[in-house]
Amino acid sequence: MSKLIINNYDQLIGSSSGKNRLAREIVLALIESALRAADPKTAVKKSLLLKRNKLTINGKTFDLNSLDNIYVVGGGKASGAMAETVEEILGERISGGCVNILKGTRSRFRTLKIELVEASHPVPDIRGLEGARRMVSLAEEAQKNDLILCLISGGGSALIPLPVEGVSLEDLQEVNRALLKSGADINSMNAVRKHLSAIKGGNLAKAAFPATIVSLIISDVVGDPLETIASGPTMPDPTTYRDAINVLKEYNIWDLCSEDIRNHLYGGLKGKYSETPKPGDSVFEKVFNLLIATNRMACMAAQREGQKRGLNSLVLTTYLEGEARDVGTLVSGIAKEIFYHNKPWKKPVVVILGGETTVTVRGKSAGRGGRNQELALSAALKLVGVKGVVIGALDSDGIDGFSEAAGAIIDGQTILESKKKGLDASSFLLENNSTVFFKSIDNCLILTGPTGTNVNDLVFIAVI
Amino acid sequence: MSKLIINNYDQLIGSSSGKNRLAREIVLALIESALRAADPKTAVKKSLLLKRNKLTINGKTFDLNSLDNIYVVGGGKASGAMAETVEEILGERISGGCVNILKGTRSRFRTLKIELVEASHPVPDIRGLEGARRMVSLAEEAQKNDLILCLISGGGSALIPLPVEGVSLEDLQEVNRALLKSGADINSMNAVRKHLSAIKGGNLAKAAFPATIVSLIISDVVGDPLETIASGPTMPDPTTYRDAINVLKEYNIWDLCSEDIRNHLYGGLKGKYSETPKPGDSVFEKVFNLLIATNRMACMAAQREGQKRGLNSLVLTTYLEGEARDVGTLVSGIAKEIFYHNKPWKKPVVVILGGETTVTVRGKSAGRGGRNQELALSAALKLVGVKGVVIGALDSDGIDGFSEAAGAIIDGQTILESKKKGLDASSFLLENNSTVFFKSIDNCLILTGPTGTNVNDLVFIAVI
Repeated sequence: MSKLIINNYDQLIGSSSGKNRLAREIVLALIESALRAADPKTAVKKSLLLKRNKLTINGKTFDLNSLDNIYVVGGGKASGAMAETVEEILGERISGGCVNILKGTRSRFRTLKIELVEASHPVPDIRGLEGARRMVSLAEEAQKNDLILCLISGGGSALIPLPVEGVSLEDLQEVNRALLKSGADINSMNAVRKHLSAIKGGNLAKAAFPATIVSLIISDVVGDPLETIASGPTMPDPTTYRDAINVLKEYNIWDLCSEDIRNHLYGGLKGKYSETPKPGDSVFEKVFNLLIATNRMACMAAQREGQKRGLNSLVLTTYLEGEARDVGTLVSGIAKEIFYHNKPWKKPVVVILGGETTVTVRGKSAGRGGRNQELALSAALKLVGVKGVVIGALDSDGIDGFSEAAGAIIDGQTILESKKKGLDASSFLLENNSTVFFKSIDNCLILTGPTGTNVNDLVFIAVI
Repeated sequence: MSKLIINNYDQLIGSSSGKNRLAREIVLALIESALRAADPKTAVKKSLLLKRNKLTINGKTFDLNSLDNIYVVGGGKASGAMAETVEEILGERISGGCVNILKGTRSRFRTLKIELVEASHPVPDIRGLEGARRMVSLAEEAQKNDLILCLISGGGSALIPLPVEGVSLEDLQEVNRALLKSGADINSMNAVRKHLSAIKGGNLAKAAFPATIVSLIISDVVGDPLETIASGPTMPDPTTYRDAINVLKEYNIWDLCSEDIRNHLYGGLKGKYSETPKPGDSVFEKVFNLLIATNRMACMAAQREGQKRGLNSLVLTTYLEGEARDVGTLVSGIAKEIFYHNKPWKKPVVVILGGETTVTVRGKSAGRGGRNQELALSAALKLVGVKGVVIGALDSDGIDGFSEAAGAIIDGQTILESKKKGLDASSFLLENNSTVFFKSIDNCLILTGPTGTNVNDLVFIAVI
């Protein structure tokens, strides 16, 4: 058995016994398998197979003898680990590359051929811009018989900023801040971002043409919309300069934009600057976008682990959204239906949900917690005394909200334990203080440390 | 085909076409079957079978020749219809009875043997008290060879108030108001109520002993806890005078209580007044509590309707709780998983959820809406453009929140329709203004009028 990702496994099993103990073991095993499936190194190794001189990527085979160069570019929070693994596999076959990673993490990864550039997140910086510029240069240099591997993961949008000529990084940051405050949806925001970027919205693919480009993507967006993840550097962009201008005007940001930005967008509208490449554009003929780790893949891995254990094992949804405490209530309602009525599935059952919940902060004092711990606390309040139901919820990146925990695991004893210690669980929930609550009970907080990946949140129900 | 309960069926099918039309037809058919199963008259007819001189109630047979008298008592919002149906079945065999019903509804029901008393809800009144006193007298008069049918439904707690001797109705009302504001949970509140009542907490069963008593119960409480519905007049009460006093002290209500109340509770503690009958007490030997209509039964009826139509048909939970808009988001997430991935069930699928959601009012203006319409609106916002997914949500009593609609039905066209009319659906949701939103689109609001029953909320997802 490989090393556990959960650091405090024994503590989480703790003194629990009987059905609760069994259900806890099941939930923790499912968490392990889900996190392993989302691990960047595992995901890259699974999708990139080198055998003799044949490189197979998701079923498509490249003969290395017929490739002149392999370049590696990209950026995101998991892209350092991805780059390291790509080098482990391809080694000397890599001609060069540049990948932007999170500031302060360079020493964690060992690469010789691929330059790893530390850049800033969530506010982009000049180092990120320099790295992004090098990526576009590499892509432009690449020829017909070259292969570019692009390693994309969450945070990539901020980590590889490259404003169009004539627009400064500061201008870009300002319009970004205004967009984030405006209430515009992600697609509207991206219409603007893509038309002010020389790398987003398919522009990297355009620079790389006629080289072959394969993007290996770890998705941190619910539903995995490829054009949204890292603003889709290798995906067609259906939006236009007109759309970008309309968004800025609709949300009253137009007048706040620098003259350079307005000139660029108006210039683009008049045909002075080229459009982002559109769906069907020939620059995408040799582009392959592959999701190598997603919330759904993590959920499916957990489902298989459940099946291996002989359980009724199902993924209920990978589109989980909503206020964490309400999701917690609903999830416990599903658990109760199974527990009391064997519906809609017969016990023993594991139900897996994936997505991303939200927390509306209401506590007057500054509570400490995260959406997954809040979900678990809310679920615990609805399962008091029930034996054989365990619910676990965690952020796959290992850091849930403002806490050092990945999430929490609860059962029907959790609230009873807290009462013995004189704690009123409801008031902790009311104050968004879930971490402080769970710290007082020794078998709830799931500790993994940063996992180096992000495929959003995972929720597990075990009923036995 | 019997008359439809939904008044505007044709309008709800309206101009929809293709998969959306089919899915709408399915959801509406499921709603019809669920509401029919919850109908008090249907429910009584199903549970009370008279054949020659044998009366069979839920499998238990009474020989009418060996019964001296049949009395009918009870109260609740559906109890008028229940009483009428009991008379239709038993007619002259009924010796007498008294059932408390909602003020202003007497003319709707035809009974000759059973007196129907109009009482007030939610604040109890003297008419209700008089009716309740008559019920206890009837129960006390009943002998070993008599059968008492007790008809209980939602609202029964307020409709059959009977303070213990020495305590006034006003005193009872005051302590009730204080309890409702205190934040005490339902079981804590009921510990007090039951110890100040001569009918609740099993006291009706105690009065009836040694007669046989059969309670026919329509449940309006999630999870159907029999001791909670109408404060359990024919159910054992595990709580004590000590518990009642503790609750009042814990929530700082003790000092607000009248001297009569405090004297009664202290007197009870000292053994001066008898305790409510406890689990295992011999007074329950001839008591039978039967749930004849519940949210779960309504959900199961809908499930069978779905199965009859050859669909994958399932009840996901009957313990649905949480903020309506978040439940709506989650429900649409489940629909999307089925729609895009055929998981965890293969299309065509209907998923049924039952329970009771809540709405936190946030609108600055006084919005008009209800929890089910808010759930549906929130779900619609997450399903824009999807074809073949329909979600319906309604309050089984036919009146959803502050509106004349029972609920709403939506599909992937709903938000697109509203945009054509220049409406911003999100802002209606933000302002708790779901009814006003749905009124502007002609195929969403489900109109049934008051259904005369209440088994809480029902949510239906159809994916084809």
